[in-house]
Amino acid sequence: MHELVQRLLDGDRRAVARIITLIENNAQDKEQLLRELFPHTGRAFVLGITGSPGAGKSSLADSLTSYYRKQGLTIGVIAVDPTSPFTGGAILGDRIRMQEHALDKGVFIRSMGTRGSLGGLARATKEAIKALDAYGRDIILVETVGVGQSELDIMATADTTMVVLNPGTGDSIQTIKAGIMEIADIFVVNKCDRDGADKMAAEVSAMLDLGHGQNPNWRPPVMKTSTLDGRGIPELVEAVSKHREFAVSSGLFANRRAQQLKAEVTETVEHYLKELLWQKAGASGEMDKLLEDAAQRKLDPYTIARRILAVFDG
Amino acid sequence: MHELVQRLLDGDRRAVARIITLIENNAQDKEQLLRELFPHTGRAFVLGITGSPGAGKSSLADSLTSYYRKQGLTIGVIAVDPTSPFTGGAILGDRIRMQEHALDKGVFIRSMGTRGSLGGLARATKEAIKALDAYGRDIILVETVGVGQSELDIMATADTTMVVLNPGTGDSIQTIKAGIMEIADIFVVNKCDRDGADKMAAEVSAMLDLGHGQNPNWRPPVMKTSTLDGRGIPELVEAVSKHREFAVSSGLFANRRAQQLKAEVTETVEHYLKELLWQKAGASGEMDKLLEDAAQRKLDPYTIARRILAVFDG
Repeated sequence: MHELVQRLLDGDRRAVARIITLIENNAQDKEQLLRELFPHTGRAFVLGITGSPGAGKSSLADSLTSYYRKQGLTIGVIAVDPTSPFTGGAILGDRIRMQEHALDKGVFIRSMGTRGSLGGLARATKEAIKALDAYGRDIILVETVGVGQSELDIMATADTTMVVLNPGTGDSIQTIKAGIMEIADIFVVNKCDRDGADKMAAEVSAMLDLGHGQNPNWRPPVMKTSTLDGRGIPELVEAVSKHREFAVSSGLFANRRAQQLKAEVTETVEHYLKELLWQKAGASGEMDKLLEDAAQRKLDPYTIARRILAVFDG
Repeated sequence: MHELVQRLLDGDRRAVARIITLIENNAQDKEQLLRELFPHTGRAFVLGITGSPGAGKSSLADSLTSYYRKQGLTIGVIAVDPTSPFTGGAILGDRIRMQEHALDKGVFIRSMGTRGSLGGLARATKEAIKALDAYGRDIILVETVGVGQSELDIMATADTTMVVLNPGTGDSIQTIKAGIMEIADIFVVNKCDRDGADKMAAEVSAMLDLGHGQNPNWRPPVMKTSTLDGRGIPELVEAVSKHREFAVSSGLFANRRAQQLKAEVTETVEHYLKELLWQKAGASGEMDKLLEDAAQRKLDPYTIARRILAVFDG
């Protein structure tokens, strides 16, 4: 067994951090690490928190962390710092605020960023969730800004997903597209002390009346919270528990996890295959010549792609 | 030749729209269409416009369109509607505003959305650019919200990229990460009538003094515009021309385009390969069994992925 995996299983915090870094860096021993972590995963409850920038996702993660800690549960928080070059500052600020939990060994917080490379963030995030799961965290909060394919991809791995709306930021029911309806198990109107909170909650409810929810047997509740005074947090935790019970008893939970595992296999196969392709095709001299032909517009890219594939496929 | 390609080359507007729809839907004859369009591409100048939501990208695209039209140039506009479920409303509003050009045959506007499927938007956008290029547009404006891998991917296809900043929305120099510095050929501080515009322009300049620009021979100019009264638009157009001249004379232009063609080939090969993989592996009975093993946690996903790859690779 990899030394770091052994240390993680023994509860060594620094080993967890190190493993996540190796995952982020796509290090050579990553596959071994994940293979060895796998038998120890599947126990944590993964709670997704998404919403537009400024909706208060981090404050909510913070409040939920405090609440669950009082119940004696251990928490992992993964904050996905979007690839956006524009919103980094705010998220950094959020991270700093979360440091009130820094001395609590029962809370492990990690920001996942792009670190120069823009691809692979969703993949790395899902792998980091596994590391925290194997580490024995009871609950893993995954916080993403709800934009882009990667973030929706990440949310698909959550057992329960809450969509956070903020009445102050121009979030309105017209701007909520079908995509978000499909991933929301719970809606949270945060900053509920603000004007427009009740109206927004009513609009979401009205939309749900139109049958836009994802599951005919689960109508996503619309919760109202204020992270300033903690209002609505116990009720939100209760709603999460109810969804969890529903998901387990209805088979949704098992089904989602099975689908996730299948999706993970197909993603991994595609990833390996790409590596193999460029190794094989690269080893043949044909490859560079064909790419050069493309660069010089001697042939269209589609014909060249078919030829490279033929080199690979024999 | 595909009838639609012939009609597009003959200047039929509806054929262009139809081809882009076929591209978006990943229709069966897409490859043939793109293959036949290819020899007619490479002539248009592609101008990328990116920035955070609310920075005024659409107004800017609008002003630039009007300006270039007065010079007799034909324009294509591709507005990439991000996969965000949150910002749809605003972009729809922008689209409606752009309709002042609706009666002008010299302007072709298209929004690219996700239409249910979340993948493939970047790919479809790049292909749509080709269609407008073959259609004979002199300038193609591509507008994206600068979040996520897909959008940065799209911007990589532009000959010149402008990053639009808005002093009113909390954009600040601390929030501009390395990623954006690498793609900006020109910075635009829009809504320059607002408080903080001069400060923001000065901050960007200061950052450029630290040598964060992408090309040692090109220092991105920091332009100030107001789309309300058209201030700064002629200067911005001049800056674009200057960058274009620089790019052509320095070889950057040819180099970028060659790299883009190579990238397109590799993306296309990977896309074909995935199709081939799931065809071949799916035809073998082994495949479903292995995925079922994954779903039931009989084996870890990495071992299963290697086995599926072995089935495919023989």
